[in-house]
Amino acid sequence: MTAIPTFDNVKQAYDRIKGQVKHTPIIESSLLNQWMGNRILFKAECLQTIGAFKLRGAMNFLAKLKEEGNLPAHVVANSSGNHAQAVAYAASHFGIKATIFASENISPIKATATQSYGAELKLYPTRKEADIAVAAAASLPDTVWIPPFNHLDVIAGQGTATLEALTEIGQVDAVFAPCGGGGLLSGTLLATRAMQPHALVIGAEPAEANDAALSLQAGEIIPLSHIPQTLADGAATPAVGDITFPLLQELDDFYEVDEVQIAYWTQWLHHLLKLHIEPTSAMTMAAVAAWAANTPSGQTALVILSGGNISQSSMSQIWERDFLLQPPVINVEETGEE
Amino acid sequence: MTAIPTFDNVKQAYDRIKGQVKHTPIIESSLLNQWMGNRILFKAECLQTIGAFKLRGAMNFLAKLKEEGNLPAHVVANSSGNHAQAVAYAASHFGIKATIFASENISPIKATATQSYGAELKLYPTRKEADIAVAAAASLPDTVWIPPFNHLDVIAGQGTATLEALTEIGQVDAVFAPCGGGGLLSGTLLATRAMQPHALVIGAEPAEANDAALSLQAGEIIPLSHIPQTLADGAATPAVGDITFPLLQELDDFYEVDEVQIAYWTQWLHHLLKLHIEPTSAMTMAAVAAWAANTPSGQTALVILSGGNISQSSMSQIWERDFLLQPPVINVEETGEE
Repeated sequence: MTAIPTFDNVKQAYDRIKGQVKHTPIIESSLLNQWMGNRILFKAECLQTIGAFKLRGAMNFLAKLKEEGNLPAHVVANSSGNHAQAVAYAASHFGIKATIFASENISPIKATATQSYGAELKLYPTRKEADIAVAAAASLPDTVWIPPFNHLDVIAGQGTATLEALTEIGQVDAVFAPCGGGGLLSGTLLATRAMQPHALVIGAEPAEANDAALSLQAGEIIPLSHIPQTLADGAATPAVGDITFPLLQELDDFYEVDEVQIAYWTQWLHHLLKLHIEPTSAMTMAAVAAWAANTPSGQTALVILSGGNISQSSMSQIWERDFLLQPPVINVEETGEE
Repeated sequence: MTAIPTFDNVKQAYDRIKGQVKHTPIIESSLLNQWMGNRILFKAECLQTIGAFKLRGAMNFLAKLKEEGNLPAHVVANSSGNHAQAVAYAASHFGIKATIFASENISPIKATATQSYGAELKLYPTRKEADIAVAAAASLPDTVWIPPFNHLDVIAGQGTATLEALTEIGQVDAVFAPCGGGGLLSGTLLATRAMQPHALVIGAEPAEANDAALSLQAGEIIPLSHIPQTLADGAATPAVGDITFPLLQELDDFYEVDEVQIAYWTQWLHHLLKLHIEPTSAMTMAAVAAWAANTPSGQTALVILSGGNISQSSMSQIWERDFLLQPPVINVEETGEE
């Protein structure tokens, strides 16, 4: 019943959306490269319209409906994060109405931005209640629900970030992306496996919201049993999907990252890249550092920086301690070089 | 005795350094444009190598000496800021030794970066003692002092940021840059007056370090009588120079910005542009908002974002309050539109 996406879907998605999304730049830090002993290239999706890669999936979803002559009058989505903004912006681009269903703990910056793109925002005490409300709304006539990650067209859209990056930079040895519901990571995997079959594909999620790690270990989807408290709000999804999970099972490696490491890398990536980077994006650097410590030096990694929408309370928490005196020097034991 | 730079010097500087400095991107926010009623284009010099425009001046200074066959074995500079990093990086590029003289209150992030580029860092209890020490060091054989702003080749180099931006974007109505010693603002003025004589050139400095405003009012250079405490550390220079001052006197407008406004705009530009932007850069937005409130809508402004090197203590201060509920909406009274 559920269609599994392929690289062809990613290529079709890119043809569909490339005129509507930004070709985001590749950024690197010579200092970080020196410290890591490897070249780390960052795909700056924080500079994407709406401040995150999520626009790619939402645009592809609607562009495909339009192509098929099925554009509805109204779209709905349940999200407290970047997906809300993506759906709001994409709907406004296609001139249709959007209603976003979210829990009351939505970050104020994401709520403000969602409304600024013209969407109606409906808030509920819990995520579960928002999910129930969106299902009811989606059953109304001429209304379509845009799922946040577990859909062929959304995954294919997210994969275009990696397609675009690998086309621009050529050969890499490893590709890293964060994991919430697994949409970005699944799309990253599809593009990398097809374009550079020898490159590793590695994911990361917060230790506080480690449902993907538990699911991968168990060989079946295990939802979180608690409401996670993590700086990486973009990766706090309670469970991966039945479309993303089989793709995530093909990953080469997967890391669980604690909250101190998430704050540490968010602060350091601000210093090194001069970009405003979400903790969800910065989290991936813990996996990069682990990979770099266990790989011969001189390799190249691509890191998909998922977004740059961060609340004041998160920023305040991230900058409360000074990590400057602990620069991210790693110990490259394998190389025999200094 | 002191040579006043012209636009020809800026053009020559660009030919000299364009292969060695980054062509930084122009970034804008549709939301900010909507709020301001005008298009605001940002030249993202925070993405320049060393994280600030200062590299342009230091590179031009040394490239010109090399062109003339006068490259010394050793360069020295007195700076606690981006100039220190610029000189360190430029010296390393030309394979010569650099020593930086700074006061002990140098921001740790700037100290770390300066040393990472291979320069020796000598610290003194006060800025004055560092200035005395650099003068002694500069008198040694085969040693040249690179002044932070009051020099033809430095000003010409800084002007290349505006030359590059105006070449790329075409016609604008106003150009904004922050003012410390006036090097960047002087270069900005030279490039704008020559390339677009009808565009306004407007400067800004912290109210806490308002020596340029006082000097402009008095018609003569008046140094600060106190050590300024400002988030905009890049604009805390105690006095403008005898080369920059006559150029600053040609500005169309000049603003003094208080500390709350500096924090406010630093936070908002992070949200809107997804760039890690120094308070010195963000300060300029207070001038842009004042200009936008008093100008017919639909105009275009260029803002030179000077850099992105910010200490943890400044970031912690900037993010301590939430400015999200006070979005930067301005009141465009002149237009008669909504």
